[in-house]
Amino acid sequence: MRIARFSIDGNVAFGAVEGDGPDGLVLDIIKGIPYAEFELSGTKVPLNKVRLLPPVLPNKVVAIGRNYAEHAAELGNEVPDVPVAFFKPTTSVIGSGDAIEYPSFSDDLHHEAELAVVIGRMCREVPRERVKDVIFGYTCANDVTARDAQKREKQWARAKGFDTSCPLGPWVETDLDPGDLTIQATVNGEQRQLGRTSEMIRSIEDLVVHITEAMTLLPGDVILTGTPAGVGPLHVGDEVAVTIEGIGTLTNKVIKRG
Amino acid sequence: MRIARFSIDGNVAFGAVEGDGPDGLVLDIIKGIPYAEFELSGTKVPLNKVRLLPPVLPNKVVAIGRNYAEHAAELGNEVPDVPVAFFKPTTSVIGSGDAIEYPSFSDDLHHEAELAVVIGRMCREVPRERVKDVIFGYTCANDVTARDAQKREKQWARAKGFDTSCPLGPWVETDLDPGDLTIQATVNGEQRQLGRTSEMIRSIEDLVVHITEAMTLLPGDVILTGTPAGVGPLHVGDEVAVTIEGIGTLTNKVIKRG
Repeated sequence: MRIARFSIDGNVAFGAVEGDGPDGLVLDIIKGIPYAEFELSGTKVPLNKVRLLPPVLPNKVVAIGRNYAEHAAELGNEVPDVPVAFFKPTTSVIGSGDAIEYPSFSDDLHHEAELAVVIGRMCREVPRERVKDVIFGYTCANDVTARDAQKREKQWARAKGFDTSCPLGPWVETDLDPGDLTIQATVNGEQRQLGRTSEMIRSIEDLVVHITEAMTLLPGDVILTGTPAGVGPLHVGDEVAVTIEGIGTLTNKVIKRG
Repeated sequence: MRIARFSIDGNVAFGAVEGDGPDGLVLDIIKGIPYAEFELSGTKVPLNKVRLLPPVLPNKVVAIGRNYAEHAAELGNEVPDVPVAFFKPTTSVIGSGDAIEYPSFSDDLHHEAELAVVIGRMCREVPRERVKDVIFGYTCANDVTARDAQKREKQWARAKGFDTSCPLGPWVETDLDPGDLTIQATVNGEQRQLGRTSEMIRSIEDLVVHITEAMTLLPGDVILTGTPAGVGPLHVGDEVAVTIEGIGTLTNKVIKRG
C-alpha cells in the first residue's frame, strides 16, 4: 500500500494512494494513524487536488554517507571501514512539490538521490533477523548537500541540515522488496544519477543493526541509505526529481531563499 | 528564575525553583508553559520529593566541537577555522539523576561538561544584536562521548548520539550573564574539568548566528557550546557531576546498559 500525507482545504490527513482511474490517482482517507491498526474511510479525493506533505513526521533522520562505492570514488573518498552516520534535523524535512531553498552560505549545492527506510516501531538493538519487523515502508529522499560547506566544516550539521535539505516523498510504499531497485535523479528532465539499491555497500539490515546498537528509533524515524554515483550541482530554478522503482517520484524546485 | 521540569505521583509539570528555606529548595508549580506568558500557581512541592526531568523538550540539540583551545589541544586537534557543528538526537536526552548507560560499542566513554543555551523563540538568520532576544536561558549539559567510536566513525551520530548521551539539567536559569562563568566536571567527587566560559573560541552570539544562518531553531532547542580541557574516561559505577556557576549541578551515574 502507498500511504501519503496531505493537506486539503486546511485539513491534514493520511490517505492510501489508489488508481490509475480516468481521473488519475486518488487518495482514500485513512481513519486512525498508519502506524497502528487503521481503516480506509472510503472517502476519496483526487491526488491533483491536494498538497502533498512529507509522508512521515520523523523524530529523527539518520543518514548514511559513502554507501555506494562509485559515489565514494567520485568525491575522492575511500569506502569507510564502518558506516558513516549523521543526522538531518526535522526542520530540514519537506515534501514532494515543496521548494528547496538555496542556502546563503553555499555556492555548491548538490542533489543526492537516496532510498529512505521508514521505521514502524520503537526499537533498539534490533537483531538482523528482526529488521524487517521494524520497517514500515520506503520512500524517496534527496539528501541535499552544500558540498563546499561539507568540505569546510568537518561535521555536517549545516551542510546537510539546513532548512529544506531533506525532501521526502511522494508517499511511503509499504509493500516492497528494496533489494534491487533502480534509483535515479534527474535535473530539468536530464538524467544525473542512476544506480541500483543492490550496489549498497552495507545492506539495510546492516544499517538498522548498526544504528540501533546505539540509539532508539521511533515510529516515523527515517534512515537514508546513501546515494549512487552522479551527484552534481543544483541551481536556482532547477527542478530535481528522485525516482525509485516501485515507489514513485519525488520532485522539488530550487528557489532563492526569500 | 530557575525553571525545572519534574514528575511527582505520575504527573509532569514545570516549576519555579525557590528556596533555600528550612526544607531546602521547593518548586512553585507553573500554570501554562514557560515559553509563553505564565503564572506561578502558589502550589509548592519540595524538590527532594520529585523526580527531575530534562528541563526542556528539544526538537533538536545542536552541539559545537573544539570551542575551547586547551581542549582541542588535549585531543591533538587544531582550532578549526569554522565552528564544528553536529547534532545529538532527542532520544539521547536525559535529566539530572537519570543514568548514563554505557554503550556496548565503546570501551572509552568520556564526560564533556558544557554550558547549554536554551532557545525561547522560533528563529532563523538571527542578527548578532538580536541573539539575546531568542535565548530563553541556560542549563548544564554533559556531551557524553564514546571517544573510540568518535575516532573510528568520522561522523559522530553514534559516538555522541547514543541513548542517554545528553544529560541536561538540573533546571534552566533564565537570569544569567553567561560571559564568564566557571564550568567544571567532577567524577566521584574528584575534579576533572575546570574552565571558564570566557575561554570559548566562538561566543554564544557567534554560534547562534552560525547555526541559524542554516536552520530554524524552535523553542526548547538547545545549543551545546563546547567543553573545556580535562575530558576523561567514565566507568560503570561512576558518578559524574557538571557544575556551572550561577546555574547548579547536573549529576548522573554511569550504569551498564541493561
